[in-house]
Amino acid sequence: MDKIEFEGYKYIDGGVCAAAGFKANGLNCGYNPDKNKNDLCLVVSDVICNTAGVFTQNKVKGAPVIVCQEHLKATAGKARAIIANSKNANTCNADGHEKAEAMCDLAGNALDIDSKEVLVASTGVIGQVIKIEPVEEHIEELVEGLSYDGNAKAANAIMTTDTVPKEVAVEFNIGGKVCHLGGMGKGSGMIHPNMATTLNFITTDVAISSEMLKLVLTETVKITYNCLSIDGDQSTNDTLIVMANGLCDNEEITAEGDDYEIFKKALYIVMMNITKMLARDGEGATKMIECTCKGAETLDTAITVAKSVICSPLFKCAMFGEDANWGRILCAIGYADAEFDIDKIDLDISSKTGTLEVCRNGAGVEFSEDFAKEVLKEEEIYININLNQGNVSAKAWGCDLTYDYVKINGDYRS
Amino acid sequence: MDKIEFEGYKYIDGGVCAAAGFKANGLNCGYNPDKNKNDLCLVVSDVICNTAGVFTQNKVKGAPVIVCQEHLKATAGKARAIIANSKNANTCNADGHEKAEAMCDLAGNALDIDSKEVLVASTGVIGQVIKIEPVEEHIEELVEGLSYDGNAKAANAIMTTDTVPKEVAVEFNIGGKVCHLGGMGKGSGMIHPNMATTLNFITTDVAISSEMLKLVLTETVKITYNCLSIDGDQSTNDTLIVMANGLCDNEEITAEGDDYEIFKKALYIVMMNITKMLARDGEGATKMIECTCKGAETLDTAITVAKSVICSPLFKCAMFGEDANWGRILCAIGYADAEFDIDKIDLDISSKTGTLEVCRNGAGVEFSEDFAKEVLKEEEIYININLNQGNVSAKAWGCDLTYDYVKINGDYRS
Repeated sequence: MDKIEFEGYKYIDGGVCAAAGFKANGLNCGYNPDKNKNDLCLVVSDVICNTAGVFTQNKVKGAPVIVCQEHLKATAGKARAIIANSKNANTCNADGHEKAEAMCDLAGNALDIDSKEVLVASTGVIGQVIKIEPVEEHIEELVEGLSYDGNAKAANAIMTTDTVPKEVAVEFNIGGKVCHLGGMGKGSGMIHPNMATTLNFITTDVAISSEMLKLVLTETVKITYNCLSIDGDQSTNDTLIVMANGLCDNEEITAEGDDYEIFKKALYIVMMNITKMLARDGEGATKMIECTCKGAETLDTAITVAKSVICSPLFKCAMFGEDANWGRILCAIGYADAEFDIDKIDLDISSKTGTLEVCRNGAGVEFSEDFAKEVLKEEEIYININLNQGNVSAKAWGCDLTYDYVKINGDYRS
Repeated sequence: MDKIEFEGYKYIDGGVCAAAGFKANGLNCGYNPDKNKNDLCLVVSDVICNTAGVFTQNKVKGAPVIVCQEHLKATAGKARAIIANSKNANTCNADGHEKAEAMCDLAGNALDIDSKEVLVASTGVIGQVIKIEPVEEHIEELVEGLSYDGNAKAANAIMTTDTVPKEVAVEFNIGGKVCHLGGMGKGSGMIHPNMATTLNFITTDVAISSEMLKLVLTETVKITYNCLSIDGDQSTNDTLIVMANGLCDNEEITAEGDDYEIFKKALYIVMMNITKMLARDGEGATKMIECTCKGAETLDTAITVAKSVICSPLFKCAMFGEDANWGRILCAIGYADAEFDIDKIDLDISSKTGTLEVCRNGAGVEFSEDFAKEVLKEEEIYININLNQGNVSAKAWGCDLTYDYVKINGDYRS
């Protein structure tokens, strides 16, 4: 997938290790019977980090989510490390909290840091008791293997039904200092974040206060991860953590202003790209779909309309079938919970092949079905809605609904 | 599908013609290239009816929906006939309103009644201009063929991707008079009613005032059709019309009381059964799923929780895969927009084979996977949630998510 370029920001390798002072490692500790697939990882900063997190709003919260929230409260937004596993979500288990704390304790002891400075995340099957022994047996090896280029091993460890790892990092300047911000994410089902998407860890060497980090994260989540939907199912374990260790030596960002805006854009670039990667790698997906709603009176309206389209199963099936059934798009716009005049709406469907005009002023316009087929053949499809009622725009991302989504989820536990 | 028996009510044949004084007919007028499939129907009462309707809340409303609303307003809730077609939804077309009125005019002229006393409904593809000529050319034949047992022809005419027609009728007593209430419905995609489900027409010979008819319909829709979800997509054309012609000669129901309750139960039985039939025949469905939420503090909480489960794509895939992945049920309960304590929840999955206890007090309990497979093999699956926080219960209905749903909707227009 091509990345959009942003002036002043350079894409670099390194994922969670792109920023100075961050080590990572990943290995197979035995949760996953496939020994070539990592299932446990650790991300560690050389120094303490200002840290902010956003978590699932599902009432059923994975034990690791609760432990993260407790730790961040106890430390007033500081952390040094994250330990994460795949294959078991440690959710809906009577001993879940105890096990999640045990994972932090094991990491804290092995790293010789306060276990309250360790955050924890788990993803996988809900409602199966997690064994702690695999972590106990492998924590030393995990710590010994930490390195400044261990990001790929960690990114592999959090993958579940993901078909590719998802890492993005950028380099940019704040006040003459070279800064870095990078992250990794995992999907790819039960993705309908209302805060974050399953597991996402972002690190940066920028110095920024905990308050500002929380603010910038909240603002950016709203227009990136929260605008992603694979299947409408909001996970119990959604976790997004950003750790800022300040090692790039800029003057700490403590208020809104130019430096804050530069940092915010870096965070947007990384989170937006991971969001698109998650959409492209949605369970069973053959196409990434980006829906832009412009001409809205408010940001909330633009987001609500764009997400309503991205979430529609009938629209998603039509995209899989490469069928320009635009009436389904208008239908999904129509049931979006926002105020606007449906008779002013223009709608185009585009891809790198070209742009298909399908609707003007809420009514269909004639188009060539042959050209429509050509446009919809591509792997990245862009739905462009103009409400013609204001000047605010927003994007949402998703994917088509395919046989393979059903197949993958028909028997996930086996 | 077995129907639940209710004391004092007898299931009978006849659908929309079960009540005295209702004729129906259906034929192929040319919208559907398959000449063996009807695509146009008419339901007519011998005398004027008190009539109530509920319609889609989608901002994109089919022109027939708007015309129905206008006619019911003009007549203060009276009607004699309904004309309906399949294959074209007459929605998002510049000339849609004019065409919908023309359908009423044609029927009104042929029946020699005021065209304002004719209601109209269309279902099918959105955004394609509907031709009026097929109706013009066949309206005489349609009227001439009206009969007191033409219900099946009409039920066939409103089917789209439905695999079976859906008709239910009951006989019961009010004040010593033998009364009848029957109806027909069609699904089977774009079904997530927030009022009614695509097209549903119910007729009765009970005498009931327009006000009481509206009240009983609103109360019953909330706990039947509005608790149905096939795919989360709310149609632009959802229409439910109830016509009461009073020919059974009971004392008119003009207030709540015993007679009202008897009538309300008859309406519930018919609408609940059609709802289950719509669920069973959801696009691509192999299983009907009924989710009961009991132990709730309020009806809204019970409905919200039950619907949240029925709407979850991951849960629906698990049912297709016959996988007792109950964590997904708890996850869907958790993101339901209602207030309750997740730690008190008990959860069972059952079918005619038996009952599988999977969760007590919000945590998993051990169960036999072999027995689970046996339970989930059946075609009707019952999810029983006990919130243990009150004494109100509600049901919601849906179906599994299958390869065929994707196939049907990947290329619906062709």
